[in-house]
Parts: sequence; structure tokens; C-alpha cells
Amino acid sequence: MQILGELLIGNRAVRGMNGAINAVNPTSGEILGPDFGGAMHENLEQACALAWQAFDRYRETSLEARAVFLETIAQNILDLGDALIARCVSESGLPRARIEGERGRTVGQLRMFAAVVRSGDYLETRIDPAQPERKPFARVDLRLRNIPVGPVAVFGASNFPLAFSVAGGDTASALAAGCPVVVKAHSAHPGTSEMIGRAVQKAVMDCDFPEGTFSLLFDSGRSIGQGLVSDHRIKAVGFTGSRTGGTALMQLAAVRPEPIPVYAEMSSINPVLLFPHALSSRAESIGKEFVGSLVLGSGQFCTNPGLILAVEGPDLNTFMDAAKIALNQQAASTMLTPGIHQAYDTSVKTIGAHPEVRTEARSQSGTQYQGQAALFSTTAEAFQKHAELQEEIFGASSLVVRCPDLAAMLDIVENLEGQLTASLHIEEADHAEVRAFLPALERRVGRILVNGFGTGVEVGHAMVHGGPYPSTADGRSTSVGSLAIFRFLRPVSYQDMPESLLPDALKTGNPLSLTRRVDGRLQSSNANVV
Amino acid sequence: MQILGELLIGNRAVRGMNGAINAVNPTSGEILGPDFGGAMHENLEQACALAWQAFDRYRETSLEARAVFLETIAQNILDLGDALIARCVSESGLPRARIEGERGRTVGQLRMFAAVVRSGDYLETRIDPAQPERKPFARVDLRLRNIPVGPVAVFGASNFPLAFSVAGGDTASALAAGCPVVVKAHSAHPGTSEMIGRAVQKAVMDCDFPEGTFSLLFDSGRSIGQGLVSDHRIKAVGFTGSRTGGTALMQLAAVRPEPIPVYAEMSSINPVLLFPHALSSRAESIGKEFVGSLVLGSGQFCTNPGLILAVEGPDLNTFMDAAKIALNQQAASTMLTPGIHQAYDTSVKTIGAHPEVRTEARSQSGTQYQGQAALFSTTAEAFQKHAELQEEIFGASSLVVRCPDLAAMLDIVENLEGQLTASLHIEEADHAEVRAFLPALERRVGRILVNGFGTGVEVGHAMVHGGPYPSTADGRSTSVGSLAIFRFLRPVSYQDMPESLLPDALKTGNPLSLTRRVDGRLQSSNANVV
Repeated sequence: MQILGELLIGNRAVRGMNGAINAVNPTSGEILGPDFGGAMHENLEQACALAWQAFDRYRETSLEARAVFLETIAQNILDLGDALIARCVSESGLPRARIEGERGRTVGQLRMFAAVVRSGDYLETRIDPAQPERKPFARVDLRLRNIPVGPVAVFGASNFPLAFSVAGGDTASALAAGCPVVVKAHSAHPGTSEMIGRAVQKAVMDCDFPEGTFSLLFDSGRSIGQGLVSDHRIKAVGFTGSRTGGTALMQLAAVRPEPIPVYAEMSSINPVLLFPHALSSRAESIGKEFVGSLVLGSGQFCTNPGLILAVEGPDLNTFMDAAKIALNQQAASTMLTPGIHQAYDTSVKTIGAHPEVRTEARSQSGTQYQGQAALFSTTAEAFQKHAELQEEIFGASSLVVRCPDLAAMLDIVENLEGQLTASLHIEEADHAEVRAFLPALERRVGRILVNGFGTGVEVGHAMVHGGPYPSTADGRSTSVGSLAIFRFLRPVSYQDMPESLLPDALKTGNPLSLTRRVDGRLQSSNANVV
Repeated sequence: MQILGELLIGNRAVRGMNGAINAVNPTSGEILGPDFGGAMHENLEQACALAWQAFDRYRETSLEARAVFLETIAQNILDLGDALIARCVSESGLPRARIEGERGRTVGQLRMFAAVVRSGDYLETRIDPAQPERKPFARVDLRLRNIPVGPVAVFGASNFPLAFSVAGGDTASALAAGCPVVVKAHSAHPGTSEMIGRAVQKAVMDCDFPEGTFSLLFDSGRSIGQGLVSDHRIKAVGFTGSRTGGTALMQLAAVRPEPIPVYAEMSSINPVLLFPHALSSRAESIGKEFVGSLVLGSGQFCTNPGLILAVEGPDLNTFMDAAKIALNQQAASTMLTPGIHQAYDTSVKTIGAHPEVRTEARSQSGTQYQGQAALFSTTAEAFQKHAELQEEIFGASSLVVRCPDLAAMLDIVENLEGQLTASLHIEEADHAEVRAFLPALERRVGRILVNGFGTGVEVGHAMVHGGPYPSTADGRSTSVGSLAIFRFLRPVSYQDMPESLLPDALKTGNPLSLTRRVDGRLQSSNANVV
């Protein structure tokens, strides 16, 4: 597939005339062709108009047809073959194996959502049959299903050029829910975006789905992204990126004549809690594993371990020594964009110069495009006093907080902002102490994990990749896993509706073989529900 | 029970020292004793501190204990006996039978939520068991449950002094979810609020539940309500009231350091669509039924039929004539407060003076405290041109829009703001035309009902009392029915957590006998899930 630098508006490809974006190979600084034309306001207008026109037809496509559509997207992505991998590697600076793995995840989550759609459970159908004999008033017939909220704006993320970009988790879950999607591509990987965008566009045409089910826009500035969030036909937003970017979108969405939900995944330092017995039995191996998680993908993960909490003493020193040795041996590695690299360097310099912070270790130095991982330490008292030490540094930087005791460690947890994950390193002898931490952790994070690290996010049914603000804009949701579909649904109730006007999902004979909640009780499709 | 005019802060009753509120009998203008002391900021502070302290213990009370607590509240309300009914009638001006019915609904919904809690389905537990043999990476063990979001602020509504006030739907669903509740009482029925508040407070003590599970504040101005929404320990808000009030709370919640969800039920004119065959076969009876729904409770329902859409012609004239005769015969009726009455009169005068609006009928005149129902008409063209004609008038006022044809009627539906309900009056011969309206209606309303009116909201499992903005702040939710519990929950995931640290809901042996989703498939409690 030739990359042409074009916008994808419904079934067409057009040249954007509002400035240009270029891909840069972050490994070398080399500019990669072609020029990608930025969208004009009229392109945005067309994409939104088509999405709105497509909505009623797209949302009532059959479960089977929608599942096949998602699977067709997956297959079309695979059909891009090695050209996709090569382009994505050259635009992201990420290793080939990582990009291949990410393609697997991207395809896998599209297929998972196909299975979710096929089962129809996400419709959460409920039926309260009429009771004409009820006293003092007859009971009406009430039936409920979830419907999609409307067209969704998706912002591609820099750090997952496949799995959280054009056909990533947000797009897959919105399309699964029945929402047309307009993507604002991330400028760090425009070629990858166009290739994937064409794979989705082709799937729309392969399946004879309505034009406007999908569009892809490049934005040479910020006006197209802002315009998308403000457009009256857009009914929800999916975003992964910085806290500044996410909160700006939240504010924009809140001041619309009709406010809409923004699902922004923003900022998290993912505390790692080292409990005493775990430290005393395996401080060294935890230290090594920690560094492995820290430097993975140059630390450019939302779940990167940016904060270590432990009680000071010889065991913590053992952990520190092991981590320092491992980090010192670590090579520098290319970051996603020169801009991200520069921001990382500035943040690391700032925290390194903090009077209460000691620089413990850096990885080896590399080229001008490579980031050097960094490990810092401070005291519990200083951490509690200086809120800026809680700010996320995007990249492989972590801060160890030496606590005088477990009570001080719990105090820190109680004062943390909302987080995506917390990792607990424990032995059975720590359980009693851990129990005292769990309520505070549950209140502050989306996922609590034991004897591991948050990097490596399983795409399953029981995953929560979300958490209280500011880790996400809306802690009631997840952006990874099958539960993500519920971000783009709302319930509608039908009262005394004649059988022939009811949607199939709610018809008495249960033609879709759904599991439905009848009078409050789940009934599988085998039962004759009403 | 003696009404003392006191705030209820946890298990104590204290005198508020920040001004005073008085109940007024809206039928007579008589001031009812005692004085209710407004809360000081320190009372708010204590209520929030106690709620926060109570949260971790309250949320982990057993399902059975929490169900019994909700049932105890219901019983304690019934135990207030006729004194509650008498006080509520004198504070609201609503008829005794209505208040007795509303008590039944209030008690009924507390008991419904008790059943919801007992079943444990609302925890939505999910288990993806570990797959140590999976290639290329072993799969971790992931388990998910819903937990409550935290203490909830509830604002009592004027129009349901029992069912949507101190122990109404918002409080019942929040307590069911495991959230402590701080109520800001509505100043229109402070005595009723105190009586109900003491019934809840007694239930907390009867069940030996943590102090702070419930508090009740009176506010002589707006600072306590605003302070509640801004307090960092409050994690969600339930509100029923005006669009002005609701949007003010939304804005306040959005600018908090940690924004929180506001569930505000605000403004709806609940379109009624009269289709041609229904009109031709029973225009007169629909006209009479419509007036019955319009004047119910002096029109002070969120689901009051404020807009009638129909194609002009002799059948619509028959409907109008029947409605006018019925309305002319209707007596005036007392409104909830002098303030509401005055606002109603002003709005009716304004719309009546609109150059494009004709006054079709008024009900009989009454005392200075009574509202006169009003029926207006206009053209489709004028309705589309004048956005102000779409504004809710709280009370028994409705506007008939004469449409040239069904296409114009659909155009109007497409331009309506979000609504709680839409009512369709149809015959089988209308079905084909109705089908063309359903997509637009689904996009704009929470409940579509056939051959009835939206007043009379069934409290069940398949009810949606919600809808797109501005009918509510968040169209993804309902404030009536068992689905309302999900407003106050968020998912948390546990990865590789040892059995002894897992919450009971997620333990392998399924000690709570829950229906759980295992590897994406629902498994009833009978199956051995993992």
C-alpha cells in the first residue's frame, strides 16, 4: 500500500489543505515522506456529517454483521503485512518485536469485541412483563436495552501506535457499541495511521456498511481536535495522552451546549509497594525485575512504575543496590518523538535538581535521540511536603520514597492522586499488613496487582485500565478490556410497545437468543422468558 | 415524633446556627413551626468527615446486613405512621392519597434495592483465571468487582417530598451501592425531611452501622449545597430540580481539583406524538386522558406532558375540543410552594403573550395559592423558529404544535433537546409511520411509551428515568429503578491476588453464591466457576 498523506473522509481519500505534518524517524531525526495534509474545517464538517448520517443505520446492523466487520478490520490490518511493521518501527523508534506484538494485541482486541458483540450481553436487555391484574394499579410492560451514544471522536495515542491509535482500543470498543468513529490521528505516526485507516475504510466498504462509519483526520495544529470535541454530532470522546491535553478536552466538552462524556486516560505514577517480608526474602530479584519494567518501551507506558514505596533499612538498600546495578548496565533507548525526549530530559533535570531528591542511578548515555533512564530517591516527609514530586514524568524515571515505617507508607498512599495501578510485593507473612492497605488502594486505583508490575496490560474481561482522576477523566470506566464497550452505551426503555415495533433484542420470542434480565433475574436464552 | 428543627450529623442531632428555614403550608400560606436552623460550615465539615470515616466500613458490610439496613429504613418510615402523612400533606399541599401512595413507593424502592443488594448481581464480578501455560506469555489471574465511589451528596426534590427526597431514590440507590449519604434537605418540606432523616438515622443505629453513614443538613441559603458538591470527600451528586440549579452543580463539580459525576435530573417537556389513525379513531378519549395526565399533581412532574405534536386537521380539532372542555372543567390546584406558583404564573403569562402562541384553555381559577392549568397552541414553523417555546414550564402547562404533515413533525422531533420520555398514541395502521420516528426518538429520550403518558413512573428493573442532556446531566444513567445503583459504582481489578486477600465476592469458592462472568461467560452460582 502506498502512503499518500491523505485524509480519509467516509469512503473517499482527500488531500488536506491546512498545512502539513511530517513523520520523523526518532532514531535518526530523518524526515519521512510523504507530507500529510492537515484537515480544513470543511473536512471535519464532512466527516461529522457522514458519521451522523451513518449512525442510525450502523447502530442497527445485526450483531453478526458488526462482529464480521470488526473481524474484517483485523484481517485487513494483518493483510498490510510487513510494510505496516516497517513503517511503524521507523515512525515510533520501537523495536520490531514490540510492534509485532502490538499488532497482535490490536487484532486480538478487535476479535474480542467481535465475540462481545456476537453474544449480545452488552445490550443488557431487561424485561418487566405487564401485570394487568396488579392492584391498586395494573403494571405496564417495560423493556430496556442499551443503545450506542452516537458518533465518537478518538484521539490516537503516541505510545501505542497500533493498539491505542487509529484502530486501537477506543475505536474498537466504540465501533463494537455501534458508534461511528472519527479519528484524529497522532502526528507522531501519520503513515501508520493512514495505513491502518485505509484498512478500516476498506472493511467498511467490504461489509457494505454506511459511509461515515469511519473517518480519519490529520491536524496540523489543534483546531481540528478541538473542533471535533465541540461538534454537536459527536457524543463522546476517547483520548490517551497528557494530563494537560486530557483536561483541556474535558473542559471543552463541559462547556458545549450539550456536554458529553470524555474518556481521557492521562497521568499515573503507578505506586509499587514493597512490603517488609518480600523485601527481606527477595530484595535483589525485585530490584532487577523493577528495572526491567521501568525501562520497557523506554518507560513510555501509562502503567510505568514511577513510584516505589518501602520502609528504609538494609533490605531496601539491597533492593536499591540491585536496581542501581541493573540500571547502570542498561543501554539508553530511543524515545517516541524528539518532543517527548526533550520533555523527559527537562523533567528529569528538574527533579534531579530538587533539594530533597537524590539521583541514585542513570542508564548509559546514548545518541542525541535516546533517553537515559533515571532512578531517584527521597524521604516520606519530603514527598508529602512537595506535591510536584507526585507528577508523572513520561519516560523511564522512577522515585523511591524511603518511609520510616508502614504507617508513614500508608499515609502516603492516602494522599496519592488517583492511579491506574498499584503493585504490591508481598509474602504471606505480609498479608496482615497488606490488608490494612487494601481499602486505601481500592479507593485510589483501578487495578491492584501482586508480585508483578503494571506494565503488560492483559486484554480480557476482568481488566480495569482506568482509575480515579487524574489517572483518567472518569474512574467509572476502563479503556482496555471488554468492559470498555460500556463507555459508549446508554439505556433506553420501551413501555407497552407493540411486538412488531420492538427492537429484535426485546421481542418476546427472544429471536437473538440473548441472556435477558426478566423481572430482575437473569434468564439464559434457553428459557422462554415471557 | 416531635419535630425539633435540628440537623442530623451522624448519630447526633444539633441545632443549626446559620439562619433559619420555615415550612409554609402552600394551601394557606400559614407558617408551620418549628424553625429549622441552617447548617454552619462546621456542620457540613463534620458530616463529610463522618461520611468519609464511615465509608470503608460501610462499604464492606455484608450484602445481607446492607439489605436489612435498607429494609429497616423502610420499616422505620412506616413506623412514623400518620404523623408523617399529615406533616407531608401540610408542607406540600399534595392530596393525602398521593402522599400515601408516595410513601408506598418510597418504602417499595428501599425494599427493591434490598433485594438488588442481596442478589449481589450489581457487583458484576468477572474472573479471567490464570493460564500459566499460555504462549508466548503466561496469562495472569484477573478478577473484577464493582466498588462504591464514595460518599454521595443528595439534594432533596420539591416535587416528591418522600420518593425523591431524604430517603428517596437517590439515597436508596447510593446506600445500596455502599456509599454513605449526606442529604441537603429541600426547604419546601423541612419537617418531612427531619422525620424521614430521623428514621434513617435510627436505622443506622438499629443496625449498628458506622456513624456517618447518613447525615441531614438544612441550608438557609446556597452555601451548604455548594460546599457539599465542592467537598473533596464527596464523590458523586444526586439532584432533581431545575435546569439552572442542575447546571450550576455540574459546573461546580467540573472545576473541583478532582471532578466528580453529577446526576442531575433537570428539565423535560416530554413530547406526546398523536399519530393520524389514533387521532381519527379516538381523538376525544386521548384528549381527556391527556388532561388527566397534565393536571396530575398540579403538573409538577418531571414527566408532565408539556408538548403535543400532531398533524392539523379535523381530528386534531376534535382532540383540542375534548381537551379544552376537560381542562375548563378542571379546578385550580395548590402548587408546592408560593415560589413555584409564582414562577409558573410568570411563565404562563409570558408564553400566553407570545405573538405566535394562542391560549386554548385554562382550568378554573382558585385561591391565590392555586395554579390554573393552561393549554396553548402554535404552528410547527413558529415552534422551530422560537427556541424559547421548547423551555420547560414547571406546572400544568402544555403546548400543542399543529404540524402541516408528519415530515414536519419528525423535523421537530429531530430538533428537540434531550427528553425523559416520549409518548406515542398510535393504532396498528400507524406502525409504518411510527417506525420512521423511532430512531430519532431513541436518540433523544430515555423512555418511549405507547398509548399512555409519562406520568406514573414504574419503579422496576427495566425503567429508565433519564435521558440525554438537558433532561439529565448524564444520559448514561437512570434515577428510578434498580439500574440506578450503577451510578454510584466503579470497577476495580485484582491481579494475581492471593485467595486470602481477595474480597469474598471474588474468592474461588464463590462463598457469596454470586452469578459471575468467567472468561467472558456468565456462570450462575450453581456452577463451580474456577
